[in-house]
Amino acid sequence: MKLADLPTPSLVLDRAALAANCAAMAARAAKLGVRLRPHMKTAKSAEAAKIATAGQFGGITVSTLAEAEYFASHGFRDITYAVGIVPGKLDEIARLQRDGVAMTLVTDNVAAVEAAARRAGELGTEFALLVEIETGGGRAGVLPESPELLEIARRIAQAKGLTLAGVLTHAGHSYKCKGEAEIAAVAEQERAGVVRAAERLHAAGLPCPVVSVGATPTAMFARSLAGVTEMRPGVYTLMDLYQMALGVCRREDIAVSVLATVIGHNPRTGRILVDAGALALSQDRGAAGLMEHVGFGWVLGEKGERLDGLYVAETNQEHGMIAAPTGAPPFDRLPVGARVRILPNHACMMAAPYSIYNVVERGDDIVDVWDKASGW
Amino acid sequence: MKLADLPTPSLVLDRAALAANCAAMAARAAKLGVRLRPHMKTAKSAEAAKIATAGQFGGITVSTLAEAEYFASHGFRDITYAVGIVPGKLDEIARLQRDGVAMTLVTDNVAAVEAAARRAGELGTEFALLVEIETGGGRAGVLPESPELLEIARRIAQAKGLTLAGVLTHAGHSYKCKGEAEIAAVAEQERAGVVRAAERLHAAGLPCPVVSVGATPTAMFARSLAGVTEMRPGVYTLMDLYQMALGVCRREDIAVSVLATVIGHNPRTGRILVDAGALALSQDRGAAGLMEHVGFGWVLGEKGERLDGLYVAETNQEHGMIAAPTGAPPFDRLPVGARVRILPNHACMMAAPYSIYNVVERGDDIVDVWDKASGW
Repeated sequence: MKLADLPTPSLVLDRAALAANCAAMAARAAKLGVRLRPHMKTAKSAEAAKIATAGQFGGITVSTLAEAEYFASHGFRDITYAVGIVPGKLDEIARLQRDGVAMTLVTDNVAAVEAAARRAGELGTEFALLVEIETGGGRAGVLPESPELLEIARRIAQAKGLTLAGVLTHAGHSYKCKGEAEIAAVAEQERAGVVRAAERLHAAGLPCPVVSVGATPTAMFARSLAGVTEMRPGVYTLMDLYQMALGVCRREDIAVSVLATVIGHNPRTGRILVDAGALALSQDRGAAGLMEHVGFGWVLGEKGERLDGLYVAETNQEHGMIAAPTGAPPFDRLPVGARVRILPNHACMMAAPYSIYNVVERGDDIVDVWDKASGW
Repeated sequence: MKLADLPTPSLVLDRAALAANCAAMAARAAKLGVRLRPHMKTAKSAEAAKIATAGQFGGITVSTLAEAEYFASHGFRDITYAVGIVPGKLDEIARLQRDGVAMTLVTDNVAAVEAAARRAGELGTEFALLVEIETGGGRAGVLPESPELLEIARRIAQAKGLTLAGVLTHAGHSYKCKGEAEIAAVAEQERAGVVRAAERLHAAGLPCPVVSVGATPTAMFARSLAGVTEMRPGVYTLMDLYQMALGVCRREDIAVSVLATVIGHNPRTGRILVDAGALALSQDRGAAGLMEHVGFGWVLGEKGERLDGLYVAETNQEHGMIAAPTGAPPFDRLPVGARVRILPNHACMMAAPYSIYNVVERGDDIVDVWDKASGW
């Protein structure tokens, strides 16, 4: 089976690129002296997770209960669910734990801690909780120097049925940086903030076995992770144009693409139409702040060669409109029925809706088909 | 079972609103004297399609082969696949036809016609083709006055194994209008263009049984559809904030929402965090050009009441950040664990990734669960 035999749109994963990305991040973790707990919200695939955890301690990170269930059903036994826990999700967490999965949860508020303590008692189980720390990302978490940090940590430590697992942060603002030096500075802010939070717990006589950071740009450019115990990058597994624009990867490291078919030409607007649109490519434009002519993805030929700077300029639900950076695109080279591969602006968003990866290895032979999680 | 019992994020559909929207569009079609062939790319649900086609001739429109297969497996027997056909999809179309489904395809180029003629011969089947007409949308199609129109139509009409089914257009530019008068003008442009194309076919001695228009705004505000035989609106089934901003519906007509749980508060940024983010809500911002403070959706209470103008201002993959139009949002009214319902900026995009609808009827009792198509 070849790429040419696939229906379109289909999701294609280059296993060689994935493996190289995973090996590079494993080397980064070893060099920085931390454990690697890959965030599988990007690839959402057990086979990808096996490659990402090869030679590591085996823990992974997820962003939904559907991912937790999927990876648990594929044998993963150490899962951090890194989105703030709410009472309504505790029963499902307890069920996973009864099946032998060590779940670690995240919170930044006393209300969730109290609900978890109550439910642990009712269910006769225990929940392990990390306190989420804000280190500049501006999304969730308590500040390292805040009174809330100690208040939440003490409530966890004192509650029967709860275990204080440590502290966790995510430097989401590293995605807004320009270049290695800025990212390295954010990485140090991420490290220093979460380590400071850990120090305050220790100083208060509280346990803090886990000190967790996580974002691909900071994992790649951190100069030191002193005091940190684990990192949770995710998008490095697949990479994308956003990471390329940040300087984190090269184009050839991008392991995922959407195979699409040319469905028409519009000579009046200078667009080549394909059957991959807003749903098949996602509407993510994250990289647009860092580079021109990226749109909803770069366009490659079926063998992976870059085509004249072509990019998907616009999308409707199931229509993608390919443009050239200047002038008309090469209509003759991409006749109706031709296949293209579209590199993701943001891999996490592009890959999410698909139920399988069609796996290649630097070529156009389909060497495997991997299932994956999707939905909630 | 109540909404309060559902996991989050979950997709909620109000059957009463859907039924009212469908009845209103059926009345529009009757008044305009055209057949209604609802576009099921929005709801992607057989139960919704049954309501949308009740009292109609039974034909539907789809945007993917996965939708065609799904609706065929649920008994629909007259399906227009309204995205430009490519050679690689003909075998699947032929399979559906062997199963008794009357498929109608769309094209705007000779290459696809020739491929379809060849494949029809090889497979011993026939394909029915509509010629796509551009009437101002600027996406796909040939112009009504173009030589290509007659060239394509003639090749279809002359090819053994192909049937010229007529002409089809989509006034995508109606989404860029402001108010009823502008939309009515675009509707007339859509009507006049596609009817002119049909007239040219008739004048050339070619058949043109179907003259098809389709977009919810133009379907709602067209003053005449003289010469048109069918319309294919889709988003009217569910409605959304974009349609509301266009003046096409009221807030209470919006039939779909995402149920989400408050996972945290950020007093520093003035954000309430929920577990519905970029994947659960989509990243569509279509309505943002027409109204302020819409973001990725409006926030309602669990019973459907509007909450202080709250909206989802930002999203990450599984995090939504709710903001108030001015100042801090009401943290006390939405504690951690509270449920909210988020109305879609664009319903087609929000509903797409979910595998089921949790069906309510103006209340919070789950009265049914409907499967739906997703993916490709």
